Formats: sequence, structure tokens, C-alpha cells
Amino acid sequence: MKAVGIVVEYNPFHNGHHYQAKQARQETDSDVVIAVMSTSFLQRGEPAIVSKWTRTQMALANGIDIVVELPYLYATQKAELFAEGAVSILHGMGVSALHFGSESGKITDFIKLVDTMNEQAPKLDPLIRLYMNQGFSYPKASSKAFSDLSLETQGLSLTEPNNILGFHYVKTIKEKYKSIQPETTLRIKAHYHEETISSDSIASATSIRKAIQEGATIENLKHVIPKETLVALNDYYSYYINFHTWDCYFPLLQYKIMTSTIEQLRLIYECEEGLEYRIKETIREAESFSDWMTKLKTKRYTWTRLQRLAVHILTNTSKETIANGLSTKLPYIQLLGLTKNGQAYLSASRKIRQTELLTKRAKATGIVAHLEEKATSVYIQPLQPKKRIEALRQEYQGPIILK
Amino acid sequence: MKAVGIVVEYNPFHNGHHYQAKQARQETDSDVVIAVMSTSFLQRGEPAIVSKWTRTQMALANGIDIVVELPYLYATQKAELFAEGAVSILHGMGVSALHFGSESGKITDFIKLVDTMNEQAPKLDPLIRLYMNQGFSYPKASSKAFSDLSLETQGLSLTEPNNILGFHYVKTIKEKYKSIQPETTLRIKAHYHEETISSDSIASATSIRKAIQEGATIENLKHVIPKETLVALNDYYSYYINFHTWDCYFPLLQYKIMTSTIEQLRLIYECEEGLEYRIKETIREAESFSDWMTKLKTKRYTWTRLQRLAVHILTNTSKETIANGLSTKLPYIQLLGLTKNGQAYLSASRKIRQTELLTKRAKATGIVAHLEEKATSVYIQPLQPKKRIEALRQEYQGPIILK
Repeated sequence: MKAVGIVVEYNPFHNGHHYQAKQARQETDSDVVIAVMSTSFLQRGEPAIVSKWTRTQMALANGIDIVVELPYLYATQKAELFAEGAVSILHGMGVSALHFGSESGKITDFIKLVDTMNEQAPKLDPLIRLYMNQGFSYPKASSKAFSDLSLETQGLSLTEPNNILGFHYVKTIKEKYKSIQPETTLRIKAHYHEETISSDSIASATSIRKAIQEGATIENLKHVIPKETLVALNDYYSYYINFHTWDCYFPLLQYKIMTSTIEQLRLIYECEEGLEYRIKETIREAESFSDWMTKLKTKRYTWTRLQRLAVHILTNTSKETIANGLSTKLPYIQLLGLTKNGQAYLSASRKIRQTELLTKRAKATGIVAHLEEKATSVYIQPLQPKKRIEALRQEYQGPIILK
Repeated sequence: MKAVGIVVEYNPFHNGHHYQAKQARQETDSDVVIAVMSTSFLQRGEPAIVSKWTRTQMALANGIDIVVELPYLYATQKAELFAEGAVSILHGMGVSALHFGSESGKITDFIKLVDTMNEQAPKLDPLIRLYMNQGFSYPKASSKAFSDLSLETQGLSLTEPNNILGFHYVKTIKEKYKSIQPETTLRIKAHYHEETISSDSIASATSIRKAIQEGATIENLKHVIPKETLVALNDYYSYYINFHTWDCYFPLLQYKIMTSTIEQLRLIYECEEGLEYRIKETIREAESFSDWMTKLKTKRYTWTRLQRLAVHILTNTSKETIANGLSTKLPYIQLLGLTKNGQAYLSASRKIRQTELLTKRAKATGIVAHLEEKATSVYIQPLQPKKRIEALRQEYQGPIILK
């Protein structure tokens, strides 16, 4: 059986995701679609609005055969490390292709760009580093360096978030996992950051989240998300009374910062260049997460970069832990859910899969599992006590199986 | 002008406190009553139900001339260190007498007991330590040691909380502050731990808090607390919507423990003998503070001891910080409030007062002030954002002056 891998957050699952899953299967001629999905906290430094279990349900009902965890260690990283982690997990699952949506839509553009960057690395890398030291983000620094050296970027704008991720998927594949065939399609219509929902059947997850937070009813969303997503969102909300947003965690974050010493903050991952002082100063009188972010923000750091830092503070994740985690070989892959077709693949692929697949979560040993356990416990902390304990127990109940 | 000092928590101020203030003034023939009052967290390891500012107001309206802080460093300690801190502050304020309520009521009993303990120290101390190592609390260990050596305890039961504190006040005075005259009166009627309110005009603070938490109306309490206390409690509650109880802080505490490593917990003050493992294990499925305490409690530790540990975890207070704080000379005394009479005393006593008196709180420097600032920030964290910021600012607005 041939498997194609995709890298997802499903925050929440919508028609565009459904479309991508179909495309991935067709374009790579695969029998199985495997999604590696971020767990509780996402790459943009935000909590997922609903739990990984609910998001897994949504996916299985809409064309995904297997969902496995992209653990905290990778899910909350900048594009490069995020991509490396995700691809290594898909490789561990034995996929022969990786499919991603992009603003470009042409896989040859990505491949050529990676080739150019590899060939020109001796000249490009120092220049990119120079611009980054001047305070430019990686995409901006790269595009300035390309322009300085009059290199072709294949028309690939690396300021587009899905192009950046795609670039890093292809780069990782070419460096380490040559057996995987990369493939991309044009993301249709909705851009990643687009904030309003149109009448079309495709809307960005950002715009859907925004609509939900502004009180959109199920009726308002039914043309952009599958029925199962609607039901799952609705069930989650009725049971837990809230979606998970930064506002649920801000009192904890503020408490954490107020009680931490400067030295303790400095140990946190991504807390660099004296940011600990600025964090301490700005938190005291902050009224909400966005109020704090506005006070904290400077030109030097992107909003996303600071949100990720906030996640690491919230979860008390140190530089040392991440460094140790990233230097360790991927210890296991955690299964979140699967269909019958997914089960068939797991049996058929036993020999080609490279990494241990945990069907039930074990008692955490090792950095990846410990980080994940801690992130989960933070994620569920705003729930009411009895529901928090239920959510805690769910972690050990094994994967969701779609009959 | 002659000043008498008293050591108080006023959680909340009631008729018994009013009575003690009068007695202190009369029995020591003093012009001024100075109260050194615990700030946000109390000796039994609990948050004060209302802020130190509100409790200061209550005191000034009812016979106290000056209220100064008993800072976190001393206020959350076992009797010995609590007493040493409190007496050193009153000494710094230039008091010539210290008055306390006790279950005994006879100052000669305390003095004789302290003398006996000092004389018999070579035999007593190793025996007390032996019993404490066997898991007995200090009071129990002492009384067992006394009985082994057939020594007179002057009928002073050291299992009574106010006798214990009184004993340590007298001990500290005899060791370090001989210029202070100790004095005690019998606590009338209500015992410290008594949980129900009778029809008498004296009730314990414990019983009053219990009644308040069970929804007692002002009407129910007006025979046991002064009018000003009623009004202040009522104002506080209407403005902040809640009194401060452990339940307000439990989500923060649970979050803190869930995100701390075993090594980080071990650094916390009073976290001894592997308690960190028990803390981690029991917190996961705890539904409330009292549920957790019940799970955590063993014979070896008193409830109070564990509650104090919980306070130190909540405020992220390390062994190192406390050790450094306790080894430092009292750096300043923070004024919380005063009457006209109190103002006159401050002018008159300028030369005899030994320690700098801060009328306005300064930017925190030094361990005592840092600890205090941190404890305040934790204390006010459950308030709504705008009210939290107001409470934060109040810290720097200077003392309450009763006109």
C-alpha cells in the first residue's frame, strides 16, 4: 500500500483541508493519507481551539486515514525545525510521498530553489545570517540575499507562509529523506491569513476561528466546513463551555511571569537578547494577552516569534530541554486516530516503518513525551476540574478508531 | 510617648481584636498601640480574605494607632521565625512593651518556661530534636521532652497556638530585645480554632471566615465584628466580587506544579524529604485545594505545614531566597497606616526607632521587598484585569491615614 503524508494543524478542519486530502491522494496515486498533526499548541504560538482528539475526529471523517502527533517539541518551532520534525515523522510512518498546499503550486520551483540555495550556500548563508543579525526575519533576509546575489527565486515568494513551509519540507527531503517524493498543489482561493469568510466553500482556518470567536453560529459556517466539523465543534463547545484561545491562558502566563525571576525567564527557550527584562516590565500592567503582545512587540520580533516565546514561558520549556530534545533521535510516533484503511496500512507497512508507533500513550519517559505531557496539562488547565481530569485520562485511552 | 506592640493578622478584625488592643494599651499603660500585621499570606498558609489595606482600615478604626507590615519573609513561617520577625519589627518601631493574647494568660508562666528551657537546653534540645526526627511537631516534641526530664511546663500547654506564639515572643525578647516588656492576657471565650459563632460578642476569626464563606450576611455578623469591619468587608466584596481563599489560587498552584520539574519543586522552601514527588503525584487528579490537601496529607506533616509549603510553591519562593532573607538584617519597616496619634508617635520617636520606616513603598530592592512584591502580585492575580492593575498601583500610594 502506498501512503502520502501531509502536515496539518486542522484548527479547525475545513473544506480546504478536505480538498487537499483528496488532491494528495490523487496526485500521488496513494492508497492512504497520513496526517501528522500538531497537538495542543501550534506553530504560530497559539493554543489549538479544540483538543487534538476532536481535531482527529474531524480529520478521520473527511478523508484522512491515519492521524499521528506532531509533538510540542516540533509543533511550536519556526518553519525549519517544524518541517524537519514533521518530515521525520512521516518518514517514520513509511510514506513514499509528501504533499503540501502552497501559494506557488509548482513543485519544480521548490526543488530548483532548494538546489540553488544548496549550491550557493557558501555565499548565501553568511549574507542571510548578516541580514538576520540586522533584525530581518528569515524569509526577508533570504530574499534580500537572493537579490544581492542576483539569484533566481523561481518567483517563489518566501514571505508566503505555506511557501516557506513547503520550501523547508523539500529542503529536508533532499537532505535526509530522498526516498520521499514531494508534491504540491496551489492552495485554492483562501490565503492562510485571510480574515473574512466569503460566500465560497473555501475559507481559511484563520477566518473561521475569527468568525467563531465573534460568535458565528453553525448556520454561518456550514458552507465552509464539513458537517462533522460543525458537529464536533458544537459538541466541544457545549461540553467545555469555551474554545481554547490565548485569553484562557493569559492569567496563568501573567502569574508565571510575575513569579519568575529574570534568571528563570532567561532559561526559557527563545528568550534571547534581554527579552526577559522587557517581558517582566510589560506584563505588570497588561490587561489581556493582546494588550500584552502590543506592549511587548518591537520591530525586531515578529508577532509569531513572540507568541511562540509566550507558549514556551507558559509551558516552562527551557532552552536546555529543547536542545536536548532536538539532538535526540525521534523516539516514537504517537498514533491519534485511524480508519479501517489506516489499520490495513499499519499491518501492511510493519516492515518498512522506521520508528516505533505507540498506539496507546505510555507513561512519559524521555524529553519528547515529557514535553508533550506538560503541554497537555497546561492545555487542559482552564477546563473545569472534573472535565480537566477526564481530559487527562483521555490521553491514555488509545487512538480514535473510525469504524 | 510610650508604645506597645501587638502581632496581628486581622483576618478579619473582630471584637476580640478590639478588646485586645484596649487591654494592651491599658495593661502596659501605653499612649500608642502599634500592630505589626501579616500582609497577603498568613502563618497558617492561607491568603488573607481581604487585602492588607482593607485590614489596616479596620484596625485604625478600632483602637490601633499604627499598622506596619509583617512581610512575607516572616509572616509565612513557623512560630519561631514568625515571632522573631515580628518582635524585631516592633523593636525597630521603638516599642517598650509587647502584648499578646494567650490561652494561659499569665506572663510569669511564659517567662519561667523560657528560663527553664534556656537552663535545661543542653539536655532538652537534643531530646526535642530526637522527637522531631521521629516525626513529632515542635510543640509535641517539647512536651514529651519536658515530661521525660520531669520538668515543669508551668501548666503551659504548648499545643495551644497562641501559647506557642507567646512562648516564642518571650523567648526572642529574652534573647535579643531585653528592653521590651512582655505582657499577656487571657484570650476571652473564643478559641483560635473554634469554628462556630455563638451569640456572644466574641468569636474567633476562623469562625467568622467560615460563616462568611458559607454566605453569612452582615446581619449575622454584626454582634461579633465592629461596624467598620462590616462596612469594609462589604465594600471589598462588592468591588472585587470575591474574598481571597485558597480556591481562588488553586488553578494557579496546580498549573505551577504541573509545569515544574521535580528539580524545580525541590528548590522550593519547605519542600523536604522527597515531598516533591508526592506533590507531583497528587496534584494531577486533584479537583480543588482541599481535595489536594487531603490527598497530600500524611501523619508526618501538619496541615498548616503543608499549606505553608503550598504558599511557597504558589509564590515560587526558594530555600535559597529565604535563607538569604533570614540571614540579612531587617532592612526597613513598611508603614501601612496610622492615626493622628500614630503620627505624633512617629515624630516623637524618631530618635529611638532603630530601623528605617518607609512611608511610601519604594521600587523593590533587596530580598524582603522582592518577596513582598511577588507575594502581592500573586495575591491580586485572581482579580479582574483592571482591578488587578488598580490594586498593583495602590501599593505605591502611601499609607492609609485616619483623620
